[in-house]
Order: sequence, then C-alpha cells, then structure tokens
Amino acid sequence: MSNSYRSDCPVARMLDLTGDRWTMLVIRDLFLGRTRYKEFADSPEGIPTNILAERLERLVDAGLVSREPLAPGGRRMCYRLTPMGRSLRPVLEAMRDWGLAWIPETRAMRPGSTPESWG
Amino acid sequence: MSNSYRSDCPVARMLDLTGDRWTMLVIRDLFLGRTRYKEFADSPEGIPTNILAERLERLVDAGLVSREPLAPGGRRMCYRLTPMGRSLRPVLEAMRDWGLAWIPETRAMRPGSTPESWG
Repeated sequence: MSNSYRSDCPVARMLDLTGDRWTMLVIRDLFLGRTRYKEFADSPEGIPTNILAERLERLVDAGLVSREPLAPGGRRMCYRLTPMGRSLRPVLEAMRDWGLAWIPETRAMRPGSTPESWG
Repeated sequence: MSNSYRSDCPVARMLDLTGDRWTMLVIRDLFLGRTRYKEFADSPEGIPTNILAERLERLVDAGLVSREPLAPGGRRMCYRLTPMGRSLRPVLEAMRDWGLAWIPETRAMRPGSTPESWG
C-alpha cells in the first residue's frame, strides 16, 4: 500500500479518483454519449469551465477517460470512457436508482442518438 | 423542480447530498457498524474532525442518518443510518467492487462485531 493513499479500502481509493460533486457528472455525460468539451459544459448543471478542464485532465491521468483529436492532426479533442471508466456503469446506475427512489421529482437523463446508452 | 438544485437528474441530486470524498466514507463506517463520533474519527483515512462534524450534521439534515443520545439524557450521541441511508448499500457495494477490481492492493474493510455488516 502506497503512503500517498489514505487507506487500502477500495471505497476510499475509488473516492480518491472520483469523489467530488462534479467528476461523476462528467462520467455520467460520457455514458450518455457526450464526447466533446462543449457538450459537457452545456449540461444543465452548468459545470464551471475551469473545473471541467481540471476534472477531464484528472480522469485522463487516472486512466478512466481517453482523449484523442476529433480529426487527425486537429486541435479539437474528443473524450471517451476507457474500459476502466466504462466499468463504473454499476456505480452510476446504483446512484441513479437511489436518486429516483428517494429524491422527489428526479428524472433519469436519456442518452442522445449514440449507441453508448444507459442500457 | 426547485431552482436550488442543479438539475433534476437523480445522479446530480444524489451527489448534491453525498458527493465529496469524505461523506461516503462516513456512510461506509456506519455500514460497518460504527456509531460513535470517535469511531468515525479513528478510521484509517483520518478525517479531520471539523469536516467530520460538518458531514454528520449534513447527513442528519438530509435524513440519511439519525442521531440520538447514547444514554437517556446523556450528552454523548450515537449515529445510525435511517432507511434512506441504509438504501445506499448498493451504491457503496458497487463502489467497493469497482475499487477491488481496478485499484491494486485494495482490501474491503470488515465490519466489527455488529449485525450491520457489508453482507
């Protein structure tokens, strides 16, 4: 166990990667098929762009998200979940189900016209 | 939908309640059977006591945790998950399973000698 971590509890370590109010919403957007910086920024929660840039960087560094140019040699980037990121689906689904069950007037977001839906 | 919330997405609303690195660890401790302020403070992650006090207050206010005197009329309090809080078990379990699968050298915490185990 590395001393740079708080403990070897898998919950604690997962929260070291994703434990704030914004990171999981970016991951939600990726599951909804969003791939572009502007798409994340346009989500209804209104993530501040400085936080968005920092969280995307952190997710790429942690191996949860890949970043590549939208067109070869282009400057515009697109972001996708890696297998490690996609495996967060049960976590997101458990959060969604809990919110639907316990928080009034919530509605699950529907994916766009992409194949990467919530299932 | 109230304007005081970021959106009506159940994931966003859940994160409004529990979306930071510490709150879910307090909930983990409650699932592990810990009920006392000192027990939460003694967890290996070393939550700062000012953050612990604030998070417990927030969890009580949100209806996830109940607080009552350890002895009638006493000043020492004990904390327990309410039904709303206990229903977070699938979220915690999905986090734990993801951490065990993807983060090396993690070990699930074992509950103490209480009936409220991880199952």
